Amino acid sequence: MNNGPTAILLMHCPDQKGLVAEVTDFLQRNDGNIISLDQHVDRSAGRFFMRVEWELNGFRVPADKIDEYFGTLIGQKYQMEWQVHRSDRKPRMAVFVSKMSHCLYDILQRYVSGEWGVEVPVIVSNHENLRYIAERFDIPFEVFPITKANKKEQEAREIELMRQLDIDFIVLARYMQILSDDFVSAFPYRVINIHHSFLPAFKGAKPYHSAFSRGVKVIGATSHYVTADLDEGPIIEQDVRRISHRDTVKDLIRIGKDLEKVVLARAIWLEIQRKILPYQNKTIVFD
Amino acid sequence: MNNGPTAILLMHCPDQKGLVAEVTDFLQRNDGNIISLDQHVDRSAGRFFMRVEWELNGFRVPADKIDEYFGTLIGQKYQMEWQVHRSDRKPRMAVFVSKMSHCLYDILQRYVSGEWGVEVPVIVSNHENLRYIAERFDIPFEVFPITKANKKEQEAREIELMRQLDIDFIVLARYMQILSDDFVSAFPYRVINIHHSFLPAFKGAKPYHSAFSRGVKVIGATSHYVTADLDEGPIIEQDVRRISHRDTVKDLIRIGKDLEKVVLARAIWLEIQRKILPYQNKTIVFD
Amino acid sequence: MNNGPTAILLMHCPDQKGLVAEVTDFLQRNDGNIISLDQHVDRSAGRFFMRVEWELNGFRVPADKIDEYFGTLIGQKYQMEWQVHRSDRKPRMAVFVSKMSHCLYDILQRYVSGEWGVEVPVIVSNHENLRYIAERFDIPFEVFPITKANKKEQEAREIELMRQLDIDFIVLARYMQILSDDFVSAFPYRVINIHHSFLPAFKGAKPYHSAFSRGVKVIGATSHYVTADLDEGPIIEQDVRRISHRDTVKDLIRIGKDLEKVVLARAIWLEIQRKILPYQNKTIVFD
Amino acid sequence: MNNGPTAILLMHCPDQKGLVAEVTDFLQRNDGNIISLDQHVDRSAGRFFMRVEWELNGFRVPADKIDEYFGTLIGQKYQMEWQVHRSDRKPRMAVFVSKMSHCLYDILQRYVSGEWGVEVPVIVSNHENLRYIAERFDIPFEVFPITKANKKEQEAREIELMRQLDIDFIVLARYMQILSDDFVSAFPYRVINIHHSFLPAFKGAKPYHSAFSRGVKVIGATSHYVTADLDEGPIIEQDVRRISHRDTVKDLIRIGKDLEKVVLARAIWLEIQRKILPYQNKTIVFD
Repeated sequence: MNNGPTAILLMHCPDQKGLVAEVTDFLQRNDGNIISLDQHVDRSAGRFFMRVEWELNGFRVPADKIDEYFGTLIGQKYQMEWQVHRSDRKPRMAVFVSKMSHCLYDILQRYVSGEWGVEVPVIVSNHENLRYIAERFDIPFEVFPITKANKKEQEAREIELMRQLDIDFIVLARYMQILSDDFVSAFPYRVINIHHSFLPAFKGAKPYHSAFSRGVKVIGATSHYVTADLDEGPIIEQDVRRISHRDTVKDLIRIGKDLEKVVLARAIWLEIQRKILPYQNKTIVFD
Repeated sequence: MNNGPTAILLMHCPDQKGLVAEVTDFLQRNDGNIISLDQHVDRSAGRFFMRVEWELNGFRVPADKIDEYFGTLIGQKYQMEWQVHRSDRKPRMAVFVSKMSHCLYDILQRYVSGEWGVEVPVIVSNHENLRYIAERFDIPFEVFPITKANKKEQEAREIELMRQLDIDFIVLARYMQILSDDFVSAFPYRVINIHHSFLPAFKGAKPYHSAFSRGVKVIGATSHYVTADLDEGPIIEQDVRRISHRDTVKDLIRIGKDLEKVVLARAIWLEIQRKILPYQNKTIVFD
Repeated sequence: MNNGPTAILLMHCPDQKGLVAEVTDFLQRNDGNIISLDQHVDRSAGRFFMRVEWELNGFRVPADKIDEYFGTLIGQKYQMEWQVHRSDRKPRMAVFVSKMSHCLYDILQRYVSGEWGVEVPVIVSNHENLRYIAERFDIPFEVFPITKANKKEQEAREIELMRQLDIDFIVLARYMQILSDDFVSAFPYRVINIHHSFLPAFKGAKPYHSAFSRGVKVIGATSHYVTADLDEGPIIEQDVRRISHRDTVKDLIRIGKDLEKVVLARAIWLEIQRKILPYQNKTIVFD
Repeated sequence: MNNGPTAILLMHCPDQKGLVAEVTDFLQRNDGNIISLDQHVDRSAGRFFMRVEWELNGFRVPADKIDEYFGTLIGQKYQMEWQVHRSDRKPRMAVFVSKMSHCLYDILQRYVSGEWGVEVPVIVSNHENLRYIAERFDIPFEVFPITKANKKEQEAREIELMRQLDIDFIVLARYMQILSDDFVSAFPYRVINIHHSFLPAFKGAKPYHSAFSRGVKVIGATSHYVTADLDEGPIIEQDVRRISHRDTVKDLIRIGKDLEKVVLARAIWLEIQRKILPYQNKTIVFD
């Protein structure tokens, strides 16, 4: 059983022969013991994707040199885009909230109980409402009230805070503000949102009301990376639950909260484990 | 255990006090033993819905007079819309197909094995392709090739055939023709379609291709009554299945077929049992 | 839209003609406006079950006399077992925990956010571990350490506390103690447990380890009333999630926690709304 | 897009460093273009599992020599157990049935519509009942009536038939006979059964009756390889569907048939694609 630290390589490049052999040979020659390897070829896009994880103990390339060596020896040769992560450095996650508490409590319970290997250095909000929860969990709570007039300026302050705190990714836990393109482009594929519908159905505001009006028999929730197009970012995870004519809009909201919590939590879990590889408007999820 | 024939009353009307008491009192006074009773109030619409089933044996109103007596004594008084059905008369179902066989085989297997109490007097198609299946099951197969030029005329002949055969409802088992408004209005809430997506997502043609392009993590199928607005009719049943980035469009089509079969079969089963009460663009499903 | 207080009648009795008419006539004569009515006949057991909810405003029998009047006029005549509840009196729920926090946090978040119309006057545990959570939520936390030697005595104190606090039902939120028959019989059909498997598979201890050993492709959770037979009580709700060969026991435990939370929460929600009618080793769930 | 024939290697062996590199290097040196590669390490068992598929076109080792070369160069060195398959040879599947038709129709519809790349040279039964279906699909139907007295002899004739027809695997499509240990050991991990419950719950006969008696809220079906221990073989696939107190045993049987069909079909699909690697009492499913 491996318990030591590991390195994780996520990469994609134009598909060609010998890519798996090239990478595994690099690891093998340098005494890297592979823990898991998963690859995928998107034939319609002609693109190759891979995630490989190996033990750092005994690996001959120093942990802080892996990125450089891999790039020099392999990455550039094949026009790869790649990231190298280390399991012994916990990702740092910021949580953005507005007034609803269900996702926040769910995230914090997982965080404090040690379910996730993650740091939460800050909770950000546009309202004071949930400060008491942050205080109960002893996590700094920063409020940036957003108006049309101050949005640009407040977002700039938020971006600055994210950089100061060395945040790896941001979770919008029912944050009821639309992020500007500037904000989004500062964190490409690094902002995870939970939308309370089964996308692409019921985009935009009040999806439970729309689901009720349409008379659907199943409702859903979707976690996705935030991109410039609202509700159009790469989907990470979705789930659904059956409803019936007996369920009012209020029931849909109640039932939907459970979906939102779990679908968002699964996306965060995948992100923490570096199992998601976004490409254009889709994700490869190596689960 | 009841094995005798039953009567089924489906009704809806403006909500008001005493409706359940009124109907059950009518049955009680006439020695009608209730097998099941289910009601629903849509508070936003202010409307009352009920399905009640009782034994015909011992009921003092003759079976063919129930509709009249109920209307005279109760229905008109409360501005009800109602239908009375009898379990000892099997509904007559026509199946419309084009070229794909999976839903047709599934329906016919259920029909011949006695799973459903239904008659299938005819299979209709716009192509010859599936005639051999109809022949294997000894069911008449009628072909009405449809072109832009002859659509009106051919549909008129189809309507005529439906009337001759005393068809109660029509199932579009992947029938790849859009029915005209004239056809639809001849069979209000009596044509059931299977759409190969999770409506309202991916309306129209090629939903599996759209689902693949969008990168969803779950696909679905929807059975619904056909109305003048394509893919907008009242939804009867929906179901979904998880997919992943590994699944190609071809995989989605294969996986989706299983959803289509079972979601359509469940809708037919509900229709046979008279458990669906459509109202405006929704259904009350008394399951 | 009704927002006033309601009365809820839950009843069962030997099946016979006219039961629905009898009850609805009683409500109708006394100006009780029915909000919802749901009935069920178990033909194999020859038993009739019903839940009916009506508005208290305008009802001619005083709220505190309904039980007496109903019994005198109808209940005794038909050998019914019945309960009358009022929506304007919140049920009082005690939560029993041991060392795991996920279900407790989930319950408390729902409680404090107002999702549930319930009172939680006390959290009981056999360990000190989770006291800090109770304190964060300002709920009294009572510890009764249980040993073989003191079990009888400690349980007697717990029963006494439940009575003092006028507790309606008890939720075992991963309470890792087996309750004695004496305790169980003091609260018949009033103790709800969450078992971390899909019963009747994997009864008893360490179900996730057993599921892993057996190589199942789906795991589950079950909420049920506690009876003298361990893990054999009437099942209220179950749900499942797919797993794969990649999931270790640790993964099953993590995934399972999400199932436990939501399956227990759904059972509590049904209990709060008085929608569960247990009979022998089964439940009728009027949802 | 690859459309040419492929080779598929399935293997497992004691876990050690360098296994992926060794195999991919072998393919790379011989110009084998990898289509997909999936591996798994069972850390508790210390065992490595892999499935790799590559194009035969251009591969320097002749297709009929791959097994020999791989064994000599790699397999024996690492104490591997391995199989090599070719996509241009369709697997040959025998279907065993008794009296129920739903799984048989479902299998045959998929077969004749070309959904599966498989040959079905024979349907075997212990009864004449379903011969008419085999005839409709023009597939030989062989009846071997089984009694206590003749079981050994009849099974010997069945085994002989399987060998004559060069059968790769056998599907028990609700075949209501228990196979003897002799039969099972003649086809190790090559007989797929569908059990109409969510194993390990409700093993043995009449699982729907047992599920009804226990009052479960979800029923299931399980496909598994047949081993000497009844209902204890490695599980390939499982699925479930919600039920309620309204569903009688007859309803469970009807609902369950849909589960049986689809769960069995998924297992067959995985088998045809050589995606299942059984090991002891579990399966690795490379989907």
